[in-house]
Amino acid sequence: MKLAIVGVGAVGRSVLDLAREYGHSVTAIADSESAAVDSAGLDPERVIARKDDEGRVGSRVPEEALKSEYDVLIEATPTTLGDAEPGFSHVTRALERDRHVVLANKGPIAERYGEIRRAERASAGEIRFEATVGGAIPAISTIEDFGPEHITAARGVLNGTANFILTRMAAEGLDYDHVLAEAQDLGVAEANPSFDVQGTDAALKCVIMANVLSGGEREFTLADAEVEGIEDVPGSALSLASEDGRTVRLIGEATRDGVRVGPRLIPENGTLAVSGTRNIVQFETTHAGRLNISGRGAGGPETATAVLSDVGRLE
Amino acid sequence: MKLAIVGVGAVGRSVLDLAREYGHSVTAIADSESAAVDSAGLDPERVIARKDDEGRVGSRVPEEALKSEYDVLIEATPTTLGDAEPGFSHVTRALERDRHVVLANKGPIAERYGEIRRAERASAGEIRFEATVGGAIPAISTIEDFGPEHITAARGVLNGTANFILTRMAAEGLDYDHVLAEAQDLGVAEANPSFDVQGTDAALKCVIMANVLSGGEREFTLADAEVEGIEDVPGSALSLASEDGRTVRLIGEATRDGVRVGPRLIPENGTLAVSGTRNIVQFETTHAGRLNISGRGAGGPETATAVLSDVGRLE
Repeated sequence: MKLAIVGVGAVGRSVLDLAREYGHSVTAIADSESAAVDSAGLDPERVIARKDDEGRVGSRVPEEALKSEYDVLIEATPTTLGDAEPGFSHVTRALERDRHVVLANKGPIAERYGEIRRAERASAGEIRFEATVGGAIPAISTIEDFGPEHITAARGVLNGTANFILTRMAAEGLDYDHVLAEAQDLGVAEANPSFDVQGTDAALKCVIMANVLSGGEREFTLADAEVEGIEDVPGSALSLASEDGRTVRLIGEATRDGVRVGPRLIPENGTLAVSGTRNIVQFETTHAGRLNISGRGAGGPETATAVLSDVGRLE
Repeated sequence: MKLAIVGVGAVGRSVLDLAREYGHSVTAIADSESAAVDSAGLDPERVIARKDDEGRVGSRVPEEALKSEYDVLIEATPTTLGDAEPGFSHVTRALERDRHVVLANKGPIAERYGEIRRAERASAGEIRFEATVGGAIPAISTIEDFGPEHITAARGVLNGTANFILTRMAAEGLDYDHVLAEAQDLGVAEANPSFDVQGTDAALKCVIMANVLSGGEREFTLADAEVEGIEDVPGSALSLASEDGRTVRLIGEATRDGVRVGPRLIPENGTLAVSGTRNIVQFETTHAGRLNISGRGAGGPETATAVLSDVGRLE
């Protein structure tokens, strides 16, 4: 397949890097200010070298990548809330041209699911978005394979930064502010960590799962989610929990009735108590009990793997 | 889709019971001595009532079910080794008629994988066998979605009976023979438990994963597997392991180089230490680290769920 990548962050770069290994070629790539297009397939190393040296991927304007001939648009621009732009327009423009779209960007699926699905129905193209939930964890395709009507709830640990902080607080008996600073030094937390520690990122992932579980009967956005972050979890709460064989994790839950995210007490050695930056998704199924999937929930190659699995499912 | 089910054990019955909920109809079903066929769709309750009352599902001979008009043959007869008959012939005959086949029976995939794949290539039908590994756990489809070439190893706890026995031995400090008798009373272990406790069942599942990981480059059968069971694990080994924060599990491992199954020391609170009859499959991936999937590895409805997910993937 010919892939056009929009967004040259960690995920876009990794898709560019790994596409050939998966049997695809990247024929166009765009960052916010430039683009490179080659219908014979771009050289990943040359594109990345230019991006690193000159701050741009090529000498064309982004519009040329969007208008180029490709089979699948890879939407890997940063997640934005509300109107979810410019990701939303990238997706709908590709669908209008009867092209497939694979998203790593959560915004359009979490904030404008109904519109995206309507655009898909009017198109010969298809959308897929495994990479928006849990990085390498196949959450969305598992819901699809079981059938959304056979899953009553999805819950889990869906933000590696928050989980790293809670894990360290529990292990070292340290306070939130101290561990956050450490996480920022390690590059696990961003300079502005609010998206992760306030629960927004986990909530978006749960909103996406709620939309898939609902099968279009009800549409959810971030505004429908009850969200509480981890900023107010005192170190003493983790010590007290530990004395009782329990710990605290930021747990998100999605059902057909809504989305809730917040710090919860869970068994210290239980399935949900994944450590560090790992994620876990737990499904309650109608006929097969509980299914757990854990793995790396973020990272360039990990998320690119989910993107490229989606591309494989389009074939 | 119109389903023809061969085999009326726990899995066959559950597929019959759940098919309608998944949008399919069962138009034929056969046990070893009888069959029922109705192109308009069989009534599951009536079939099961007759089987329970008279020991047969209908008044026809099994051959009529195999020759009937269906879209997908569900092969749910008991796993047999060596020539894997009669399952093998059921599969190849369906493929010769250009029909799809979904297997819950491990025999044909573990013992005659190359022949089955060759028969599939000559057919317009397709084979799927998610239910042969780990019950409700989507092991095979995860390998397919990642691409076999992107997974270097699959390992895990793949036999619920053996795991139940080891879990109880560790928790209660009891010996193998005592716990086996208890498991037999509970119906967790069969009267002849050798298939489970000697590691054969786990090995077959690993052989199947090795065949999928190899993508046909090398073919494995049970004869290629190094297998050791749990019968010789003394209760004292579990006590000693526990003092060191570890426990024993029957771990199977599949790579492109071979299959090994045996009791292994693992961390007591580690990911692989699932309890009771639960199963877990752990994949080592090339670009996305380690992925774990745990859930119910056996049971009628659980395995039927995997069968019906496979049917869904054929559409």
